[in-house]
Amino acid sequence: MTVLTTEKRSVGIVETKCFTFAYPPDELMLENGETLGPVTLAYETYGNLNSDKSNAILIVHALSGDAHVAGFHKNDQSPGWWDDMVGPGKAFNTDKYFVICSNILGGCRGSTGPSSVNPKTGSPYGLDFPVITIRDLVNAQRHLIDYFGIERLLAVAGGSMGGMQVLEWMVAHPERIRSAIPVATAMRHSPQQIAFNEVGRRAIMADPNWKGGNYYGGPLPANGLAVARMIGHITYMSDQSMAEKFGRRFKDERQFLKFTPDFEVEGYLQHRGDSFVRRFDANTYLYITKAIDYFDVSKGKSPGKIFKGNMQALVIAFKSDWLYPPYQSQEIVKACKMAGLDVTYCEIYSTYGHDAFLLETEEQTHLIRHFLEKVYRGEKTEEYEI
Amino acid sequence: MTVLTTEKRSVGIVETKCFTFAYPPDELMLENGETLGPVTLAYETYGNLNSDKSNAILIVHALSGDAHVAGFHKNDQSPGWWDDMVGPGKAFNTDKYFVICSNILGGCRGSTGPSSVNPKTGSPYGLDFPVITIRDLVNAQRHLIDYFGIERLLAVAGGSMGGMQVLEWMVAHPERIRSAIPVATAMRHSPQQIAFNEVGRRAIMADPNWKGGNYYGGPLPANGLAVARMIGHITYMSDQSMAEKFGRRFKDERQFLKFTPDFEVEGYLQHRGDSFVRRFDANTYLYITKAIDYFDVSKGKSPGKIFKGNMQALVIAFKSDWLYPPYQSQEIVKACKMAGLDVTYCEIYSTYGHDAFLLETEEQTHLIRHFLEKVYRGEKTEEYEI
Repeated sequence: MTVLTTEKRSVGIVETKCFTFAYPPDELMLENGETLGPVTLAYETYGNLNSDKSNAILIVHALSGDAHVAGFHKNDQSPGWWDDMVGPGKAFNTDKYFVICSNILGGCRGSTGPSSVNPKTGSPYGLDFPVITIRDLVNAQRHLIDYFGIERLLAVAGGSMGGMQVLEWMVAHPERIRSAIPVATAMRHSPQQIAFNEVGRRAIMADPNWKGGNYYGGPLPANGLAVARMIGHITYMSDQSMAEKFGRRFKDERQFLKFTPDFEVEGYLQHRGDSFVRRFDANTYLYITKAIDYFDVSKGKSPGKIFKGNMQALVIAFKSDWLYPPYQSQEIVKACKMAGLDVTYCEIYSTYGHDAFLLETEEQTHLIRHFLEKVYRGEKTEEYEI
Repeated sequence: MTVLTTEKRSVGIVETKCFTFAYPPDELMLENGETLGPVTLAYETYGNLNSDKSNAILIVHALSGDAHVAGFHKNDQSPGWWDDMVGPGKAFNTDKYFVICSNILGGCRGSTGPSSVNPKTGSPYGLDFPVITIRDLVNAQRHLIDYFGIERLLAVAGGSMGGMQVLEWMVAHPERIRSAIPVATAMRHSPQQIAFNEVGRRAIMADPNWKGGNYYGGPLPANGLAVARMIGHITYMSDQSMAEKFGRRFKDERQFLKFTPDFEVEGYLQHRGDSFVRRFDANTYLYITKAIDYFDVSKGKSPGKIFKGNMQALVIAFKSDWLYPPYQSQEIVKACKMAGLDVTYCEIYSTYGHDAFLLETEEQTHLIRHFLEKVYRGEKTEEYEI
């Protein structure tokens, strides 16, 4: 019989709540100079905020994520998107920490975004929604943290686009965080990464159902969004993980049919594309991929001048991730080091590609659990290097 | 003053010719059991066939290529697609060799394909065109070689999908070739490669102008084909070459415009996608990418039993090519070695990605020129390894 030192459990049944702020005339000032308000953020919390509010962790999600990180919604069979990582005894141990996650500004899972009703017109914003940036996403989250009365977060953590928000927190509000955990991410989008996003956008906008963004209430630009998602999925997996998962197997016998998906990998992509369409808004896809492409945490500063403050950082990358390859995480580490931050870099061996940040939870659990405990106790973390 | 040992010159003005064969009832038997005829291949030749017909080289083209490898068409400013490689004094030295290139079966640049008129209906084939394979492309080329009375080609050479045709020549007609030069290619498409093709096909078929392939005479499925080509272009370049060529530069000032291409890389892709539409047929794109996906030169045989015969081979790969990475060329070399072939492997350093096979002509020139000279003189080539 194995005795577990820390038993991992589910957070159980959870529900999404809403926080609305920035009522006119105190609207949210956006990076492009426009204002937006009121703004609603859908959020979930797990665990309990302690009396001095020193145990709060903000988890930020990736492109297609939402506020539902862990546990189960009533009558739903699937847990939250990082359920293996968040709960009693897990990496983000909700017996000790108070975990918050909100759907991003511009999202389509309860937060204000292009599919929300524009109070000025009574109709969905569509392309009247302003251009937003990662900075804007983070500033909206700061309002939520203020609402909870949290002066300083124990940590802000997230992978992929979530990692970009972590980096933006580090430069925009360094006094508000004690530590940062950017996972499988980059300080700026490379032209190859921009290119993949642009092809997805082009596919959406080429769909005649897109209608310049005014498709609400009518047929959705489902084909375009499915193509965009299929492209995304290829970049989330690795050559090797696809070879292991699908090989060159046919769904049935080789059919010589004309252009129906006959390889297993084709069927998988089609399925992932089509199911995405049912839960995601195409305009959100446009706005958020553009926010990612615009993202450059350096804002033109030299590497030694990007970060500041006395926070601690744990940077995690995955060997087979070719969407945000390890060299981009190493650039983050270098910039942290040049700013004198207490930073640890861990490159995890995995064949899963970019998806590893969602799948390789065991090794991440060890890394993040120990890192958080040390930060919480006020200890140095840098010495433990993998 | 530099004295050139071999002065490179253009082949000058050339023209595309046509060869038609497989008139009913002697139609071309296809791999899927159907027949097709008559079949026209558009082709060009450069140099002169010698009296014993021992100096003929067949060059086979990639997905979007055509018969026009070298020189200039009358009143055209752009040379053929591998002009740096084919001509007097060049790698494929037309002072010595007779070079042939034909547009592939299924193509849209003069050869019979889905945009050709179906003699049975008097209208373009569209999706009545049969499913074709790389084997079918090669068998059609064999008819052209027969027409010239060439018993044995000195070499068959090509990059990317051209390389697949080279490999297919090696297994389908080993007695008809003395040597083979597969460049930047693979023995079979990996699921990642299939996935990229499938997304392109899905984009084309999602275009309402595609109309089940019956778009001839009406508006073209231009948006879908442009998206497919944009995806292709990302895979042809490397992360590094894109960073060097575009960086994160904006076309103009950062505009915060809604979803017009504002990064240089976006403008480039849009331009390449849109210009492709003017010269390429969307149905050909569907048929040929599917032929590539079906391609598996092993036909299920173990690596030591794929190749046979006593031909010589020069296998070339490029370090930054992530569409057909060097490991796939190394698999070709291994299979050649296991079959006892005289094979040389050269991995060329380049940051250009897959495009390197079209751009890194200087190093390829040295390799191919010497290889061909040795093959022509009946010498062993294997000893010269880079």
